[in-house]
Formats: sequence, C-alpha cells, structure tokens
Amino acid sequence: MELDEVLGRIVDEVAPLRGAGEVADYIPALARIDPGQFGIAVADLGGRVVGAGDWQVPFSAQSISKVFTLALVLAGSDESLWRRVGREPSGNAFNSLVQLEHERGIPRNPFINAGALAVTDELISQVGDATGELLDFLRAESGNPDLRVDEEVAASEATHAHRNLAVTHFMASYGNMHNPVATVLDQYVRQCSIEVSCRDLALAGLFLAAHGVRRDGSELLTSRQAKRVNAIMLTCGTYDAAGDFAYRVGIPGKSGVGGGVLAIVPGRCSIAVWSPGLDARGNSVTGVAALDHFTNMTGWSIF
Amino acid sequence: MELDEVLGRIVDEVAPLRGAGEVADYIPALARIDPGQFGIAVADLGGRVVGAGDWQVPFSAQSISKVFTLALVLAGSDESLWRRVGREPSGNAFNSLVQLEHERGIPRNPFINAGALAVTDELISQVGDATGELLDFLRAESGNPDLRVDEEVAASEATHAHRNLAVTHFMASYGNMHNPVATVLDQYVRQCSIEVSCRDLALAGLFLAAHGVRRDGSELLTSRQAKRVNAIMLTCGTYDAAGDFAYRVGIPGKSGVGGGVLAIVPGRCSIAVWSPGLDARGNSVTGVAALDHFTNMTGWSIF
Amino acid sequence: MELDEVLGRIVDEVAPLRGAGEVADYIPALARIDPGQFGIAVADLGGRVVGAGDWQVPFSAQSISKVFTLALVLAGSDESLWRRVGREPSGNAFNSLVQLEHERGIPRNPFINAGALAVTDELISQVGDATGELLDFLRAESGNPDLRVDEEVAASEATHAHRNLAVTHFMASYGNMHNPVATVLDQYVRQCSIEVSCRDLALAGLFLAAHGVRRDGSELLTSRQAKRVNAIMLTCGTYDAAGDFAYRVGIPGKSGVGGGVLAIVPGRCSIAVWSPGLDARGNSVTGVAALDHFTNMTGWSIF
Amino acid sequence: MELDEVLGRIVDEVAPLRGAGEVADYIPALARIDPGQFGIAVADLGGRVVGAGDWQVPFSAQSISKVFTLALVLAGSDESLWRRVGREPSGNAFNSLVQLEHERGIPRNPFINAGALAVTDELISQVGDATGELLDFLRAESGNPDLRVDEEVAASEATHAHRNLAVTHFMASYGNMHNPVATVLDQYVRQCSIEVSCRDLALAGLFLAAHGVRRDGSELLTSRQAKRVNAIMLTCGTYDAAGDFAYRVGIPGKSGVGGGVLAIVPGRCSIAVWSPGLDARGNSVTGVAALDHFTNMTGWSIF
Repeated sequence: MELDEVLGRIVDEVAPLRGAGEVADYIPALARIDPGQFGIAVADLGGRVVGAGDWQVPFSAQSISKVFTLALVLAGSDESLWRRVGREPSGNAFNSLVQLEHERGIPRNPFINAGALAVTDELISQVGDATGELLDFLRAESGNPDLRVDEEVAASEATHAHRNLAVTHFMASYGNMHNPVATVLDQYVRQCSIEVSCRDLALAGLFLAAHGVRRDGSELLTSRQAKRVNAIMLTCGTYDAAGDFAYRVGIPGKSGVGGGVLAIVPGRCSIAVWSPGLDARGNSVTGVAALDHFTNMTGWSIF
Repeated sequence: MELDEVLGRIVDEVAPLRGAGEVADYIPALARIDPGQFGIAVADLGGRVVGAGDWQVPFSAQSISKVFTLALVLAGSDESLWRRVGREPSGNAFNSLVQLEHERGIPRNPFINAGALAVTDELISQVGDATGELLDFLRAESGNPDLRVDEEVAASEATHAHRNLAVTHFMASYGNMHNPVATVLDQYVRQCSIEVSCRDLALAGLFLAAHGVRRDGSELLTSRQAKRVNAIMLTCGTYDAAGDFAYRVGIPGKSGVGGGVLAIVPGRCSIAVWSPGLDARGNSVTGVAALDHFTNMTGWSIF
Repeated sequence: MELDEVLGRIVDEVAPLRGAGEVADYIPALARIDPGQFGIAVADLGGRVVGAGDWQVPFSAQSISKVFTLALVLAGSDESLWRRVGREPSGNAFNSLVQLEHERGIPRNPFINAGALAVTDELISQVGDATGELLDFLRAESGNPDLRVDEEVAASEATHAHRNLAVTHFMASYGNMHNPVATVLDQYVRQCSIEVSCRDLALAGLFLAAHGVRRDGSELLTSRQAKRVNAIMLTCGTYDAAGDFAYRVGIPGKSGVGGGVLAIVPGRCSIAVWSPGLDARGNSVTGVAALDHFTNMTGWSIF
Repeated sequence: MELDEVLGRIVDEVAPLRGAGEVADYIPALARIDPGQFGIAVADLGGRVVGAGDWQVPFSAQSISKVFTLALVLAGSDESLWRRVGREPSGNAFNSLVQLEHERGIPRNPFINAGALAVTDELISQVGDATGELLDFLRAESGNPDLRVDEEVAASEATHAHRNLAVTHFMASYGNMHNPVATVLDQYVRQCSIEVSCRDLALAGLFLAAHGVRRDGSELLTSRQAKRVNAIMLTCGTYDAAGDFAYRVGIPGKSGVGGGVLAIVPGRCSIAVWSPGLDARGNSVTGVAALDHFTNMTGWSIF
C-alpha cells in the first residue's frame, strides 16, 4: 500500500473521533479553534512529503517547539546543557514543582516546562535571538518562508504565564538561569506560539529520522545526538502518557497542547499529525489514534 | 527581683553565647553585622519599657514584620484573609513549595513566606501603601518617629528575591494574588527591611499582650483576634522549631533572620531580643537562650 | 460560677450539636456507638473531679493513649526517645508517609501514628509489657481498677492495621524500630483500645496540670518534662487542626477518633470531654465546642 | 562480523571495567560475589545461543525476574492487572513511597518494587504457586532443568524485607493486595532469588524478541502484549536511568541488583549480560557498557 493510500485510510478511520477530547482553553486564541479538524503528513528521507486532511492548515506548535530548541542547543554545544537539565522521565504532572525542588533546581528532562525553559535560556546564551534562530531553522527545513509567531497567541500566553514564571524564578533561585527571567519567558512563549502545518512540521523534523542530517545534507546533530533526542522523545515526549504512547504508537513522539504531535521512525520518515481535542493527559485524542493506525498499518514500530 | 535586674542577669548569662551561630549572609547588608551584639527589652501593660545590652540599636526586622502586617490586615477585615491563608503549622522548611502545590496555592499559615506574601497582598488591597501603613503603626506604638525602611537592605533583598517571586507567581497561578506580583514583592521586601530596636519592637508588640488594645487605649484587634495571633505565633512563629520554642521558652514568639525575636506574655508584657547569630533553623541562638532564661526566671510560661 | 454549674451550662449549650459529625467507621466496634452521647469532667489540683452528661460512660481512648505512653517513656528516660522522634508539628494528614520518608524514618512528633509507634517501641524496651504498664498507671491515677482493654476493639483494629504496619516496617527499614514489628503493633493497638470514661481520663491526666506530680504526690515527670508534653499537645495534639484548636480552645489538648479529648490548664486542672461525632480532621465536633465554651466561661486560656 | 566474534571483542573492550562499581551489599550472600566476573550471551530467533566470558556462571536474577512474572500474568489475563498497576515511568528512586501515596496505592509501573509486588500478588491469584510457575517457565525456555531458587539468598532477603513489607502493607491499606502480605512477600523474595546464567536468561527472554512466541512455537503473549512489555522495559527497566539507558544502549532492557541485564532487539535476538559491580543508580557498570558496545557494533539500536 502506498503512503498516500495509508494516509487516506487513516483519515477515514479517525473520522468518528474528530471533535473528541477537550480543546486547550487556558488562552482564548486556542479555545476558539474548530475541534473537528484533523491533518496528517509524512516526510521520507528523500524529502518527499505526502499529506491528507487538514495537513496544510497552520496550528500552534506549543510544546512541539521544545524538540527543535533542544536540537539547536545540542548543535551548538551539548556539554553545558546536561549539567543543568536531566534526561530521565519525570513521572509527574508536566508542570509540577515538587520534583524541581527535590532536585534543587535541575529539571528532570528538556520536555517538561522547567527543562524547556532552561533549554531556551541556554539557546539565548548561545545565539541571542532564540526565536529568530528557531524560525530560521523551521523555515529552511520546511521550505516555508512564511512561518511566523502568532503574536496574538504569544501575547495571550504571556498574560497566563504565572506558573512558568514561578518555575523560572525557582530555577533562578538555585542559580540555574543565566539570562533575565523576563527575557527567557518572552522567548519561550514566542517559540511555543509559532504556527506550523503538519506539512511544515514533518519536513522540519525529518533530520531526526535522518540521523541528524538536514535536508540540505549538512549535519545538524551527530548520529548519537539524534539518537539521544529520539530517546528523550520516547521516554518523555507525551507528558504523563509516555509509557502508553511508547506501547500504542511504538515510536518516539512529541506532543503539544495545540493538538499536534511529531513522531519519528528512525532511519525512515517523520510524521506530523494534528487535531485540537486533547485527552486528560494533554495529548491529541485523534492525533494519537492516527499514529496508532499508522504504525499498525505500516508495521513501523521500534518494539 | 525587679525586671531591670532580671535583664541585667540575662545579659551576663548569655555573654558566653555572643557571636554563636551564623549571621544571615544571603545579602551583604546583613552579612556584615557584628555578631557579638545582644539586646533585650521588656514593655509592660502600663507602657513602661526597660532594656539591657544593645537594646536601642536598630536591626532589620525581617520576618518579625509579618506579625504586624497580619494584625493590620485582621484589624481591617479578617473575613477575606482566612479564605486564602490557612492557620496550621507547616512542618516544612519555611520556603518550601511542595505544600503550597499540594494545597493548590493556599499557604498553610501567615508566617511562612507564601502566607506573608498573601497577607501583604491583602493589606495592599485594603490600604494601598502597605509599608506606609505599617510604618505609621510602628512609629505610633514605639513613639519613635524615625523608624524607616533600610533602603540598602531592601534593594539588596530585591535582587535576591527569586524564591519569593516563584512563590508569588505560583500563588498567582492559582488565583490567590490580587495585586501585581511586582507590587506585592516590593512591599513585602520593604516591610522586611524596616529597622527597629528591641525597645521599638517591645513597645510595638505590646498590643498582643494587651488583648488587642493599643497604647492609646484604642482597640486594634478584638480580644479573640489577639488570641488568634498569639496562637499562630506559638504554633508557627519560629520556622521549623516551633515545637522546641514552645517548650523551651513557653510563650508565643516570632523570629526573623535579622536575629530578632518578639515574644508575648499574654496579659502581662512583651519582650524583644536581638542577637544576629542564627541556628540551623534560622532563629537567633543567643536571643532564644535569653528568652529561655527570661521565662525561667520570671516563671511566666504559659504551660 | 461553680465548676459544676459551668459544666451543666455547657451540657445545655452543646445539646444542639449532639450527633453532629461522623462516627469513626473503620472498625465495626466504633461504628455502632450512639453518636448522641456527650460527657465532660474536670479534675482540679486537689484531686476533686466533677462531671456532667455521660461523663461516666466508658469510650475508646484511641490516640489519647499516646499522651500517657509518651509520659511513661519520658519518666523512664527521655534521652533515647528524642534521638528517634522529633517534636515539631507535622502539617500533614496524621498518617502520611511522605514526611517520614523525607526525614529518613524519624517521625516528626510523638502524636502522629509513626511517632506513637516509636514511643510504644521505646516503652516495650523499657518495661516489656507496655500495655500493662499503661493500665497500671491509668488505674492508679483514676482510682478505677476496672480499666481494661476492649478486646473486641483491639481485635478489630488489628485486622485494619495495614497502614500502621506499613509505617512500622518503614521505620524498621531505617533502623528506627527496636522490637519486632508484630509485637509493637500488638501493643500499640491494645493501648489505643483501652476504655476510659471522662472521669477516668480527667483524673489520669491531672499530673500534666500538676507540673508532673501524680495524685499520690510522687513525681512522674519533672516540671520541664510536663511542660514539654503540654507544648507537644498544643502544637501537635489535634491532627491537622492544632492551630485552630490552639486559638479556639487556647489550652493544650489531645484528641482521639473515639471522640474523646483530654485538655490541660497548666497549674489548675485537667478536662476530659467525649462525644463520638468527628469533624473532617478527626476531632470530636461537640467535644471541641464544649472545650471552647469551657475556656470562654472560665477565662482559662493560655493566650 | 560473526556474533561470537562480536562477543569476544566485547569481552576485551570491557576488561578494564571489570570490578568497577559497587556490589550490592545489603545481603551477605550478594556481598561476597567476586566483582571481577563478566559474562554475555545472545540468543537469536532460531534458538541458537552464543556466549563469552562467564556466561554460564549462575547469578541472582533479582529484579530481572519481574519481566517474566509480568509476562506470565499477562499471559493469564491482562485485564485485571492494568486496573491495579500503571504503565508510566516513575521518575523516583525505585522504592519510593511518595508516589504510591499520591496515587492511592496504585504503583506507577510493574518494574518498581511496589508494582512487581502487585504483579506477584496477581500471579498468586492466577496460579497459586507463583514461584513454581516461574521456575517451570524459565526451565522450559532455557532448557536448564537445574534452575532453582538460591535458598540462602531468599532467606537473607526475607530478613531485610522491611521496606518491601512497608510497601505491601501500604498497598493493602488501599485494598490493592489480594493475598496475605506474608505470602506475597515470600513469593516475591523467592522469585528474586532464582539463579540464572547469561545463557539461561538470553534463552528465557527470547520470546520478547519473537513477538511473544515461545521456543516451542506456542504463543505466550500476543504480539501487542510483547510490544507492551518491551515498551515498559525501555521506559522503566533500569530504575532511575531509563532515559540514559534508552539513549546509550538504544534497546529495551531490565536490570537487577545481582548485576545482570536482559536486553531485547525486537524481531532479532535477546542479550543477557552480567557483572556484579553496580553504578549509583543500581545498574551493572560493566554490563551496561557491554550492551552499549554490542548495539554500536551491530547497529541494532531502535532509535
């Protein structure tokens, strides 16, 4: 079965699920999204991308941006980062402060909010304009020069940032924040507010399937670094459902509360899905179901 | 034995302890205090005050200010406060976030930092200029018009406020902060940075021994409210050593990392001690020893 | 107003509250108690005891026994105990394991279950038959030779002891248990299952009002030790409501889930109340209300 | 390169590491193991097994037994188990009670001690003699009829079981234990005390590489169930180092404090390594290094 046929079937299979789950409602700009939308795109190592459903509709990347920020920091230098962020699953609600206190300001991994804030801080130290760097990368890989921050979302998130400000000041109190809290928060929020389509996302994430190599053939990450990012996605990429995701979908994935998920079949392809309705643990109901179908139909599980 | 004789003896008794403990060193202005200083003052219900040692030397009130801010808020209205701050001992390090997360942004009591920040927030809502209100009260009760904020200490604390900023944003994320975080922090830090002497402090705290009645005969708190404040001082006033303080000293007390302690013999007198060296739990080594002597010599324990 | 008149009035005052709250229902023998019962007794330093209501009806002492076990251990030797049990309020649900883990097997205070189990273990090491020792003491002080363990309650508690067994094994894993877990649990459960009336309890607790002196004039505790027990009762005696109890009632008290409370006015008298209905924090609704009336009517608050 | 050549090279590569780490010393029988030993064995889907070093020396399976107990329970019925055990990484020390309390007696996953105790309890309910069932399975798959419980180790573990008894009683207090605590502990300890060699272990674990199919061609687990076990091994199999193991080794693995590790290349082979010295997180220093070499040399990472 050809890939576009697979994707077409998946669109049919998940049709009854469309609209299931709850749209993130903590900011107005996300709350008013039509929950019935669903898109899927697959990019292969040759750089070809196929899609189905609403695969070209832009949505808010949210936590999926954490994968790219992490990769850009590791590309710059992976020595300093691992002294201030761990690599182990957290086993807690994604924004809990208990563990952070227990481990004296060192976040468990780069995909919980605390860890991502430290990664953003590190990228700011490396390049200054972290969001600009991220946009440059995403535009280059996706071939979409129009990728941009949704300023309304960013502004709205900034007014709901008390929890993330608490986390950032808390790390700062342990000396684990190198730039001003306000700067880090601003950059973090802007990165999360970048709009991408499934098409953009599949292409931008392809380097993780390609052992670290970008679409132009240059190396962003070494093979070992790409393996590292994939391992972190598998163990920590879907909030407190990483174990279930590993089993059901069987490949590394990173979700965001915008309803998107980026998943990687190492050595083969990257897949992006999107549907706004979330389950109780913050992952797209229809998106995860679609990935489940995808790996079942293709047999591309890593287990 | 007359009170001034008692105080003189205490100065002799604690002489070997002078300099014991560690001076709070997280801000330079506190770190350079001469640790050998010690003062004690007692004010009785008639408004007489006697003192010994360095009892007229000003020091940083720090957390002792929390007693007065609480009293001023309760004087304004004690309905709203108890919906957002508890009244139970915390049994944790004084600035832990774990319990605050467990209880969804409601601090355990008004004397842990989180609780005091909520109290300050409440006072701002009541009167606007919280620090001004506090200074007015302290000046009136002590009869010392020169009481003021030590601006160097305040500025220095403001640059070390990450932990308190984390706590305040965290409460704000639960909706338990009514004024802007920056405003609350600024007022909180300024209140902590007020300079008082033992003499000032004993006079200012006298209303708690006098069932809520101020030195001019007006009622700040009802008798029940004063009892409430005394009970909170006893169970929560000395960080994670409230149980030991209750036993050793046997009367309500509130300490600060500036090395001061205010203690109350209900119906009789207020006592202020000061010596900068702190024990491992943040209470003045020599100050607590002096209070221990005081209640033993006078027999004025509540137990 | 004479004391018996005070008690008569209190019976009238709390009449509307009789039956309020929930009877402890985790064991059948407690669950079938008539919730409408209420008794109060006061014993003064002269050894006179007056009572009202159901003051001579026996009820299950439960956690109130912890006060006496603690006193007996301290009478034997208070050096060793304080190396294995703390003296600070816990600020958690009364049977939480979190704090015990955080503090590596050292319970916060002698009145949480973990602490009381360590105290029982200590008493077994001192005297062997801990329950026998406790019964001897209670019988002598109350003058009631019929005081005994309710074997049905004890047997029933033993079959619901998983949580306490967990706590005891947990302390044992840190080396903080000197006798076999089964022995300690058996003794602990039997102590909790002793039946006392308000009359018995007021007389048995009188030594805490009398600075440690027993009814026969012999010294069980030194004055300092008695003060220590009173301070622990005030800060830790009523589960997670110690702060509120300190304020409302204003004297040291220890409650049990059988619905009893023992309270002490140092230097003056001991008071025992009983009514089976409990509030959400495990304290007798009507019993605490009665103590509130008592201290208001007599003015005998320590604050 | 042939497999036996690969294994020979690995023996050379890890030679300098032999003896590194700390041998588990909480029971005498484990503490006196010669730390310089190292073995490795690989079994392929055809049932062939090759080995090198001390690959035929028996060692204590310890927590590796949890994989087989889990598989046997799932083979019996996987409905009931997942109502009482979770499938998410724990992110805590492997025997922490905090999370268990937070989640009301439901262990996070089957590989922390609490979870494995629940799995053993479930197996007892299914078959009665859980250890007998496990031994039958291990003997059949390994073709080694002499596999047995090391009774000295079992007896020794039973006397150091306070922590596990605490955990088991704690779950029982939440109703999450169906058989008597003493029975469950006894069976659990005996399963952990089974002696296996690398050869035995590689053969016994082969069904996980073979999508659930046993060596005789019968199905122990469905393909989805085998995938589930592999996913849990990857995310939870190496205590608080699962993230690092996933990255370094890149395949599912389960370690034990006896120094063994079982690892799975799905669809290809199973690998068993053993060397007694443990790192700070409880995994075999030399064993994990050997697996790292193995997946690097063969290229058989899942990422």
